[in-house]
Amino acid sequence: MTPFQLNDQLLAQIKSDIEQHNTAALKKRANEYHYADLAEIVDELSIDEGVYLIKLLDSEKTSDVLTEVDEDIRESILELLSVKEIAEEVEELDTDDAVDLISELPEDRQAEVIAQIEDEEHAQDIQELLTYDEDSAGGLMAKELVKVNENWTVTKCVREMRVQATEVKRVHSIYVVDDDDILLGRLSLKDLLTANNRAKIKSVYIQKVDFVNVNEEGDEVAKLMAKYDLEAVPVVDDKKKLLGRITIDDIVDFIKEEADKDYQLAAGIASDVEADDSIVDLTKARLPWLILGLIGGLGSVYILEGFEEVMRHPTYKTLFFFTPLIAAMAGNVGVQSSAIIVQGLANDIVKGSLLNRLLKEVGLSLINGVALGGLLVVFGYFLGIDTLVSFTIALSMLCVIVVSALVGTFVPIILDKNNIDPAIATGPFITTSNDIFGIFLFFYIAKIILGF
Amino acid sequence: MTPFQLNDQLLAQIKSDIEQHNTAALKKRANEYHYADLAEIVDELSIDEGVYLIKLLDSEKTSDVLTEVDEDIRESILELLSVKEIAEEVEELDTDDAVDLISELPEDRQAEVIAQIEDEEHAQDIQELLTYDEDSAGGLMAKELVKVNENWTVTKCVREMRVQATEVKRVHSIYVVDDDDILLGRLSLKDLLTANNRAKIKSVYIQKVDFVNVNEEGDEVAKLMAKYDLEAVPVVDDKKKLLGRITIDDIVDFIKEEADKDYQLAAGIASDVEADDSIVDLTKARLPWLILGLIGGLGSVYILEGFEEVMRHPTYKTLFFFTPLIAAMAGNVGVQSSAIIVQGLANDIVKGSLLNRLLKEVGLSLINGVALGGLLVVFGYFLGIDTLVSFTIALSMLCVIVVSALVGTFVPIILDKNNIDPAIATGPFITTSNDIFGIFLFFYIAKIILGF
Repeated sequence: MTPFQLNDQLLAQIKSDIEQHNTAALKKRANEYHYADLAEIVDELSIDEGVYLIKLLDSEKTSDVLTEVDEDIRESILELLSVKEIAEEVEELDTDDAVDLISELPEDRQAEVIAQIEDEEHAQDIQELLTYDEDSAGGLMAKELVKVNENWTVTKCVREMRVQATEVKRVHSIYVVDDDDILLGRLSLKDLLTANNRAKIKSVYIQKVDFVNVNEEGDEVAKLMAKYDLEAVPVVDDKKKLLGRITIDDIVDFIKEEADKDYQLAAGIASDVEADDSIVDLTKARLPWLILGLIGGLGSVYILEGFEEVMRHPTYKTLFFFTPLIAAMAGNVGVQSSAIIVQGLANDIVKGSLLNRLLKEVGLSLINGVALGGLLVVFGYFLGIDTLVSFTIALSMLCVIVVSALVGTFVPIILDKNNIDPAIATGPFITTSNDIFGIFLFFYIAKIILGF
Repeated sequence: MTPFQLNDQLLAQIKSDIEQHNTAALKKRANEYHYADLAEIVDELSIDEGVYLIKLLDSEKTSDVLTEVDEDIRESILELLSVKEIAEEVEELDTDDAVDLISELPEDRQAEVIAQIEDEEHAQDIQELLTYDEDSAGGLMAKELVKVNENWTVTKCVREMRVQATEVKRVHSIYVVDDDDILLGRLSLKDLLTANNRAKIKSVYIQKVDFVNVNEEGDEVAKLMAKYDLEAVPVVDDKKKLLGRITIDDIVDFIKEEADKDYQLAAGIASDVEADDSIVDLTKARLPWLILGLIGGLGSVYILEGFEEVMRHPTYKTLFFFTPLIAAMAGNVGVQSSAIIVQGLANDIVKGSLLNRLLKEVGLSLINGVALGGLLVVFGYFLGIDTLVSFTIALSMLCVIVVSALVGTFVPIILDKNNIDPAIATGPFITTSNDIFGIFLFFYIAKIILGF
C-alpha cells in the first residue's frame, strides 16, 4: 500500500474545485480518502475552504476528520459550526473522542452541545467523562465496551454481544462482570469460539485481568500497557466497578506526544510546537529559553571580567582562548549525563543507591576526562602551547567534566524526587548552568595551579 | 491494579530463596508474577541465579521471560542453555518473537536450534522470517494470523477459525483471501457476529484493507499504523499474497525505541545505552561525541588566537568576555531549529517550498535576535559597557542567531534528502559547528564595525 502523499499539485486541484463549487469531484475524493488523509488536506486549506469541504462529507467521516485535524484549525472550524451541527458530529464519535472534541469548546457551548445530543445515554456518558482530568485514565477512556454477565450462557453471551457490538467500533476484550458491574475477568474471542454453547460464562472466563483505576495518571497507564503488551485495559473505580476502557491507539498517541515533549524540552523549546506553526507561536516557545541562555551568558561575562588581568600575561592569556571549549565540554557532558538519567527515570530503570550512582558517574567522567585531557595535551604540544599551561588546561577540564557530569546526573534526580518533570533539566537549563560553573572552575583551578 | 514494584527487600528474598534451593517458594512466586515482572527480576539477578529461576518456570513462561529480559542478560542465559532447551522455548513463542530470539544466537547455533524444533511448520515459518531484514515489515511480522477463504460460508468460517484460533494468541483482524492466498479484504468480528450463518464470506467481508509490503521499512509501518489507528496490519508480497501480520504491540516498542534513539542522538550519545549499562558501554557511547566537541573547541581556540591583538585594546577586549555567550546562543538557536525540523521530518509535516521555509526561519530568528540584542544593550548599559561595543555585540549576535538558525534548519533537511538520519544533526554536531561559526562571525563583524 502506497501511503497517501499530499503534494502541491493535489492541493491546488482541491482548492480550485472548492472555488468552483465542483461538489461532485470533491465528494468523490472524500469517499476515496481515509479520514486521516482528509484531515491532512484540511490542515493545508484556509478555514473557509476547510469548512466547505467538511460540510460535503457524510456525518461519520466529518467527525473523524475533525478529531484528526490540528487543534488550532479544529477550534476555528468549530467556531463556524452551529451547536446543532457539532452535536451531530459528537453523536457519531466514540465517547472518548467526543469528549476530546467537546472539551475544546467554551464552557457555555459545551452545555449547549450536550443538550442537543439525541442519544441520552451517549450524552450522559460524555457528561461523566468530562468530569475526569484530561491526563488521567478517566480522561483517556471510552465508555464503549463489550461486557457480559458471569451468569449468562455462551449462547446468550453471543446474542447480547451482537447488540453491544453494533455500538462498539472495535471489540478488544470481552469483559466479564457480576450483577453489580464489578469487573471479574475477561473472555477471549478464542474462548468464545471454542466453548460449548450451553456453558456458563462463569466456567469459561479468565479470572486474571489487568485493570487501572480511573484516577491513575496517563503516563502510568501508558507504561503499564507497554510493559504488559496490553491492547486494551479496563478502567474501574475504587470498588472495581467497570467504568470504561482505554485502547492502545489512544496510548500510542500519548506515548508519541510524551516523547516529542521530552525531545523538545531537551532542545530548549518550551511548549508543544511544530515546524508549520506560526512565527508567533514558535517565538513564544523558543525565546524564553534563549533569554535564559542570555542571562547565563552574562553570568560568564561577569566571571571572565574577574580574571581580566590574566589577559595581560604573555603566556596565561591562552586560557581565554579556551573558554568556549571548556563551556562546550561542560555543556555536552551535562546534557549527556542528564539525558541518560531522564530516560532511565522515565523507564523506571534507575535502580540502586544514590552512592552507587555517584561513584559510577565519577568513574565514567574520570575516564572521559583523562582521555580528553590527554588528547588536549597532545594537541597543545603541536599547537605550540606552553606545557605547563597545557597541563593546567587539561587538569581543569578534567575537573569541569566531573562536576558537569554530577550536575547533569543529580539535578534530574532531585527534580524527579520533588515531582518536577526531570526532562526540563536536559536542555538549556543544564547547558547554561554548566557553562557558568565550568568557566568559573576552569579559571579558578588555573589560578591555583599557575598562581596568577 | 497496583503495578508490580521490584524493591531491594523482595530481591534479597528471592536471592536467598535461590541460594537455599527453596523451589516451592520460588515456583509459587513465578506463578503469581507476570512474565514482564519476572524479566525485571531476572535482570537484577546474576546470570547463574537467573538461569536457576528460569529453569523452574513452565516452558511457556520461560520463553516469554526470555523475550523480555535485557539483551545482554538474554545472550548470557542462552549460552548456558542447551540447543534442545532453546528449541523448546522457541516452540512456545509466536514466530516473530521466536525469530527475535534465534537471531541473537551465533549462526551455527541458529541452524541447530531450528533443526530441533518439532513443529515443522513453525520451523519453516521461522526459517522464512529469518531471511528478512530486522527493521523491515518482514522482520517485524508474525506468521500467526486468522485467514478465511472468500468462498466459505459463515458457519464454515467459524469452524475453521476455531482451529486457527488455537494457534493464534490474539485475534485482531480476520483476513479474507482467495484460493491463491491473495489478500482480498478483512472480516470484522462484528460482521461475523451479525451475519447470517449461511451467507458466503464473499458477501459480507470489507474490501477495503490496509496492508504493507514485506520490504517496507519499519518506521514507515509505524507511521502508517499510528496515522490510521491500525491495531494490526497484514503483510503481503509484491503479488499481494498474504505472508503475515504486524501487531501494534510490536510497533509500540518500535516507536519507543525510535524516540529514545532520537533523544539520545540529540543529547550526543552515540549508541543505544541505558543508565544501568556498564561504564565501558557508556564511555563508548559518549566519548566519541566529546572528542568531536574537543576538536571543535580547538577550532575556536584557533579563531580566537587570530584576534589576539583585540585583547590589548582597553575597550574592545570586552569582546573576549562575550565569547561563551555568543557560542551558547549559536548552539541553543541551532539545536532549537534542528529539533523542530527533525520532528517535522519524522512526522511528515514539513511541507511547502524550501524558499518559504528559509523566509520563515529568517523572520523567526530576526525577531528572536532583535529581542535578545535589545536586552543585551539594556544589560550592557547597566553593566557599564561602552555603548558602541554594546551595540556591536548585539548586532553581531543578531547575525550569529540568524546564521545558526539557518544552519540548524538546513543541515537536517539536506541530510534527510540524502537519506541520512537527520536526528544526528540535532546534537553536538550542530552545537559544535555553530560554536565555531558563531565565534568567527562575531569577531569578524565586530572587526568590520569597530575597525580593529
